[in-house]
Amino acid sequence: MSIDHSFKLKRVFYGLCGLVRNLNYLDKECNSFSDTLMTNLRITLNIKLIFISLNMKAKIGIINVSDRASKGIYEDLPGKAVISTLKEYLVSEWEYEYAVIPDEQNLLEQKMIEMADEKKCCLIITTGGTGPARRDVTPEATEAVCQKMMPGFGELMRMESLKFVPTAILSRQTAGVRNQSLIINLPGKPKAIRECLDAVFPAVPYCIDLIEGPFLITDENVIKAFRPKNK
Amino acid sequence: MSIDHSFKLKRVFYGLCGLVRNLNYLDKECNSFSDTLMTNLRITLNIKLIFISLNMKAKIGIINVSDRASKGIYEDLPGKAVISTLKEYLVSEWEYEYAVIPDEQNLLEQKMIEMADEKKCCLIITTGGTGPARRDVTPEATEAVCQKMMPGFGELMRMESLKFVPTAILSRQTAGVRNQSLIINLPGKPKAIRECLDAVFPAVPYCIDLIEGPFLITDENVIKAFRPKNK
Amino acid sequence: MSIDHSFKLKRVFYGLCGLVRNLNYLDKECNSFSDTLMTNLRITLNIKLIFISLNMKAKIGIINVSDRASKGIYEDLPGKAVISTLKEYLVSEWEYEYAVIPDEQNLLEQKMIEMADEKKCCLIITTGGTGPARRDVTPEATEAVCQKMMPGFGELMRMESLKFVPTAILSRQTAGVRNQSLIINLPGKPKAIRECLDAVFPAVPYCIDLIEGPFLITDENVIKAFRPKNK
Repeated sequence: MSIDHSFKLKRVFYGLCGLVRNLNYLDKECNSFSDTLMTNLRITLNIKLIFISLNMKAKIGIINVSDRASKGIYEDLPGKAVISTLKEYLVSEWEYEYAVIPDEQNLLEQKMIEMADEKKCCLIITTGGTGPARRDVTPEATEAVCQKMMPGFGELMRMESLKFVPTAILSRQTAGVRNQSLIINLPGKPKAIRECLDAVFPAVPYCIDLIEGPFLITDENVIKAFRPKNK
Repeated sequence: MSIDHSFKLKRVFYGLCGLVRNLNYLDKECNSFSDTLMTNLRITLNIKLIFISLNMKAKIGIINVSDRASKGIYEDLPGKAVISTLKEYLVSEWEYEYAVIPDEQNLLEQKMIEMADEKKCCLIITTGGTGPARRDVTPEATEAVCQKMMPGFGELMRMESLKFVPTAILSRQTAGVRNQSLIINLPGKPKAIRECLDAVFPAVPYCIDLIEGPFLITDENVIKAFRPKNK
Repeated sequence: MSIDHSFKLKRVFYGLCGLVRNLNYLDKECNSFSDTLMTNLRITLNIKLIFISLNMKAKIGIINVSDRASKGIYEDLPGKAVISTLKEYLVSEWEYEYAVIPDEQNLLEQKMIEMADEKKCCLIITTGGTGPARRDVTPEATEAVCQKMMPGFGELMRMESLKFVPTAILSRQTAGVRNQSLIINLPGKPKAIRECLDAVFPAVPYCIDLIEGPFLITDENVIKAFRPKNK
């Protein structure tokens, strides 16, 4: 799809989003509105939104932060775990940017900035580097590049991991927003990656709506995204 | 009540508070103290404290942070929800300072500073502006004006809201202390406001004791404030 | 034990640690390795590690932060509570550095730096000074001296204390890492100290492994330390 075409689709898409919002607003304000009319309008608009969002590929950045994986000593299992999980989750179209880099704060910051500002990733997921060891700097890099921190992600992921291991409190993983990108730190172990993603992903599509990113649609049989009605 | 009179009452009040603390201390140190004497002294002092606190009106600041409410597009429901909830909670006398302002960090900071330093509000409650969207800056403004942050409030409110919606982790709401004012961020939706206040308010009166504010008394049938014994 | 001797033991110890890690790695990579051989090697190495760690005394710093205790008005119960709890927990050898200081941020920072950098304490535990009152500055001092903050400790301790009192959210206690020292804030009340230590200590020995400190061994009948297998 050419850039021009995608740009036009995006404008149509946001126009429709606005219409849906206005309908919700009108619905609340005027009790005189016909219920059947409203319902029909909503269904039509939502179908169009889904149709268009399927044509707008979301870009997701995945960064495996690991000294050993970046040298090829370890196989890059965390990155593969994130990709296969997202493939299960998402039914709307998406593509990924990918990187394996060592635990160096400035390299990680550069990579996150590039994925957010140049590659326009709406979601950037890091794996590894969240522990207390000397080389673990992923949370510091995340905080350095984000304008807003989102402590609820780290709290929930630790609470979830605590069900399995008491050392979950050693993970310093966090999340934040840089411009129109949501950045989430995950642990390095494939099993813990899945547990953490399962815990927080239901809130991710709505978060990306709020930062004006693409409309992500999940497979409800795998993970149920939640979007509040009548904001 | 004139300022002079209120000031004298406040001194008497703090003197009595000190006496109660000393009694608790003596009680712990000297086993020779008569139980009945102690109990009588305590009851008398507590009755006096309650009597005096009823004469000292607590000031509570309420700030609805909302671009749309400040322009009159939306009705100011969050502010009304906070006031009606506090009316149910508190039996000691209180009055409120009120403001509706747009999501502008410097305006919000000014308003919080004014309510804390000039209006002497012991408690300042904000609603809205805690999400990840570009215009949401309430937590940033709160952190900028507070000397101490209190992460436990945000953690508990998110944990509570998670029982209802998975998007609770998107709320970045926090709390902190500026001089003798406790500042608490609440979400913007009336239903969530009540849920969050119900969760944290049991700890609020004792927190205000610790920062040397007025003695708040709650209606125990609605919400049970907790004050540890024998600190 | 002379410094030279201790230094050599430490080198042997870390060499053995490396061997155990390599064995785990080999085990994962090569399926051709004999199971029995591996198991025997592991048991031998772990016995040696335990033997050596018993000869390397861990140093633990304990700081009671309290205006009143530092003036001798109160008996130093919090410090005693920490020491007696650690005596129950640890079977590997340890000794403590001890201090009672007033709630002064710069004094507390100096003491933490001294215990971390000069006395080489692998673990520094503070008690008190974590509330919202004007003189409570322990979390601020901790954040000022640490390179990495560990929010999971404070979250879990507050969650645990919330089971007993709703005012648990007023505790701003945190934890962090300065060089090779883990610093943990505890509340000031002996009962709460035990509750908090019971909650977080299972993760402490592995955390100290990760920051390259001594190998702590707990009495599993009292508290079960957790170390993940096959990192």
